[in-house]
Amino acid sequence: MTETAPRPTLEAVAARAGVSRATVSRVVNGAAGVRESLVEKVRRAVEELGYVPNQAARSLVTRRHDAVAVVVAEPETRVFADPYFALQLRGISKELTAHDNQLVLLLTEGREDHARVARYLAGGHVDGALVFSLHLHDPLPGLIRQAGVPTVFGGRPGWDDTAGAGAVYVDSDNRGGARAAVRHLTELGRTRIAHITGPLDQTSAADRLAGYRDAGPDPDPALVARGDFTPAGGERAMRELLDQCPRLDAVFAANDLTAAGALRVLRERGRRVPDDVAVVGFDDMLQVAEQTDPPLTTVRQDIEEMGRLMARLLLGGLDRGAAGEVSGDLPAGAASGAAAGAGPAGVVLPTTLVRRASA
Amino acid sequence: MTETAPRPTLEAVAARAGVSRATVSRVVNGAAGVRESLVEKVRRAVEELGYVPNQAARSLVTRRHDAVAVVVAEPETRVFADPYFALQLRGISKELTAHDNQLVLLLTEGREDHARVARYLAGGHVDGALVFSLHLHDPLPGLIRQAGVPTVFGGRPGWDDTAGAGAVYVDSDNRGGARAAVRHLTELGRTRIAHITGPLDQTSAADRLAGYRDAGPDPDPALVARGDFTPAGGERAMRELLDQCPRLDAVFAANDLTAAGALRVLRERGRRVPDDVAVVGFDDMLQVAEQTDPPLTTVRQDIEEMGRLMARLLLGGLDRGAAGEVSGDLPAGAASGAAAGAGPAGVVLPTTLVRRASA
Repeated sequence: MTETAPRPTLEAVAARAGVSRATVSRVVNGAAGVRESLVEKVRRAVEELGYVPNQAARSLVTRRHDAVAVVVAEPETRVFADPYFALQLRGISKELTAHDNQLVLLLTEGREDHARVARYLAGGHVDGALVFSLHLHDPLPGLIRQAGVPTVFGGRPGWDDTAGAGAVYVDSDNRGGARAAVRHLTELGRTRIAHITGPLDQTSAADRLAGYRDAGPDPDPALVARGDFTPAGGERAMRELLDQCPRLDAVFAANDLTAAGALRVLRERGRRVPDDVAVVGFDDMLQVAEQTDPPLTTVRQDIEEMGRLMARLLLGGLDRGAAGEVSGDLPAGAASGAAAGAGPAGVVLPTTLVRRASA
Repeated sequence: MTETAPRPTLEAVAARAGVSRATVSRVVNGAAGVRESLVEKVRRAVEELGYVPNQAARSLVTRRHDAVAVVVAEPETRVFADPYFALQLRGISKELTAHDNQLVLLLTEGREDHARVARYLAGGHVDGALVFSLHLHDPLPGLIRQAGVPTVFGGRPGWDDTAGAGAVYVDSDNRGGARAAVRHLTELGRTRIAHITGPLDQTSAADRLAGYRDAGPDPDPALVARGDFTPAGGERAMRELLDQCPRLDAVFAANDLTAAGALRVLRERGRRVPDDVAVVGFDDMLQVAEQTDPPLTTVRQDIEEMGRLMARLLLGGLDRGAAGEVSGDLPAGAASGAAAGAGPAGVVLPTTLVRRASA
C-alpha cells in the first residue's frame, strides 16, 4: 500500500488561517454568512496545506456525494460478456460525467451478494442508484427500498403495483417491437414463425413473448422455445425447435445474441437464411447484428439512450428533491406516465425495425 | 425514484429499547462493555424496526466500510472492450466476495475525471483502492496519495523511486516473458524478428520492449513499430512494418489483441503464418489466442491471479493495519521484495511460453 504523508486536518487549516474550526467548516461547506476576508484566509490555508475536506463529514451538511451507484442484477461475468450492459453503462457514464457525478459500479458474483450491495447503498456513499436487469422474485428492489436511496430502474419492474408504488423506470416498447418483428415476417409470407424467448422472469422477455403472441399467426406451442439472452441459449433452443417443427420457416429471437446462436445452428443444419428460414432479432447491437452471417434484421432499441435517460431522471429528481417525478426533456417519441394510482411511473422509448439480409 | 417509508433512526431504536442513544450506538458498533440484557433489548428493537445502521456514522467508529474501490486508468469504453480488464476484475471480484467486501468500480470517461475519482476515494467511502493500467505522467497516483487511502497497484508504477516510496504492486515478469518469446523465434531459425510495442507510457509495454531488445538478434530500428494494445493498432503497425521491412520473418506482438490485428494484415498481404512469418503474442487470453487463425503462440501471464493477489494483499494489509507490507501466501514462483530503501515493493508473477500454431 502507498505510504502516505499524514493528511492535513481541519484543525491544521484553522491554525494556519488563524480562525476557528467552525469557521473553516462553514467555508469548506459553502455556508453563507462568513466574512469575505476570513473566507480568503481559509481558502489560502486549504491550498497551502493541500487539505481535502472529508466528504463523509461534509456530506452530513450538504447531503450530496455527487456519486451515483449502478447495480446490474447479474453476476459480473455476464456484465462483461454481454455488450448490452456496456452500452447502457456508456450512456449512464456520459450523463453522469457531464454533471461531474462519479459512476460507482457495484459488482457482484451473484444474487447472494445483493444484501451486501443494499448495505453499501444504505451506507451513505451515493446520492442515488440506477438498477437494471431485475428478475422476478429478486429481493434486490425490496432491499433497495429499505436502504432508502432514490432509485431509477432500467426496464419495467415486475413486482405488483403496491410494492412498486412510486418506482420510476425507463423501458423500451418491447411488446410493440415484437409485434412489428412478427408482422414483418408475416408480410414476407411466412406462416410457421417460431419464437426463442429470453429468461421469462424478466419483463423485457415476457413482454416480447406477449408481442409475438399478439401478432403470431400460428398458436402452436411447439413453436416457442425458451432461451436466456445468450448465444449458447439460442443454439440450444434452435436445435429444439428444428427437432420439434422441422417445417418452421421463420424465427423471431428475443435478442441479437440469441439470434446469432440460432443462425449458427441453422447453417450447421443446412438451412439457408433467409430463403428457408427468415430470422429477426431484437436490440440492434451493431457489433452483433452487423457481424452475423447474414447480417441480422432486428428490432432496434436505443440502449445507450436508455442509460442516459435513467441518469438524467435520477439527477433531475435529486435536484428537485422530489421522488417519483418524471418530466423534463424526454426524447422524441418517448411515452411517459404513471399508471393511475399506485403503479410505477415509466418512460417507454420507441423501437423500430431495421432491415438487413436475414429477413 | 422509489418512494420510501421513513427510515428508522437511532433515536427510535433507543426509545423502543428503553435505553440511551449511546447504548444503542455502542451495541450497533459492536463495542465491548455493554450488559448482555441491554444488548438483547437493543437487538430486539433493531429487528422490530428494521433499523439499518448508517454506515457513514458507524464507520467513524469502526473505520471499516468492507468496500474496496477499483480504478482502471482508462476510459470506460476501453474497460469494456478489452477482455484483459474483465479477467483482472474477475480475480478481484472473487477475492473480495470471499471476504464479504463490496467491489466498487469507479468508471471514468478519461483522465480529466481522475480528480473526481480521487475525491471519491478521499471521501471515506472505501477502505482501500486497487489501481491499474497506470500511464506515465498520470496525476492519479499523486492524487491517490493525497487522498490517503491504502492502495495496491496492478503493474509496476512508472514514477521515480522517491514518489513511489512504500507503493505495493503486483506485476508479471514482462521482460523475462518477452525474452522467452524472442528466444523461441530465434530457435525456429528466424533472423529478422520485428516487434509491435504497446503504449510505451506503460511499464508493461516498456518492459516487453526491453526484453525484446535483450534477446533480439537484429538491432534494426525499422523492425520496431508502435502499437497500443488494440487490434486496430496491431493492424496499423503490421502494415508499417511490412512496408519498411518486407523481408521480416517473425513478429513478437506486445499483446494478443495486437497479434490478432497483425495476423489479419499478414493474411490480407498473402503471407503464410507461420511459414513466411512466425507470430508470438503476450497474455494468453483464451478467447483471443485460441480463436485466431492460426491459433496463437503466446506468453502466458495469469491475469485473473494478478487481480486476486492485488485484492489479497490489500485486505491483508488492512487487517494488519500495516501499509506496504508484502507477505502471506504468495503463489508458487512469485518473486517478492522491496528494492532496498525507497523503491516500491512488488510481487512479480512468472510468465510461460504457450505453443500453438503461429510460431
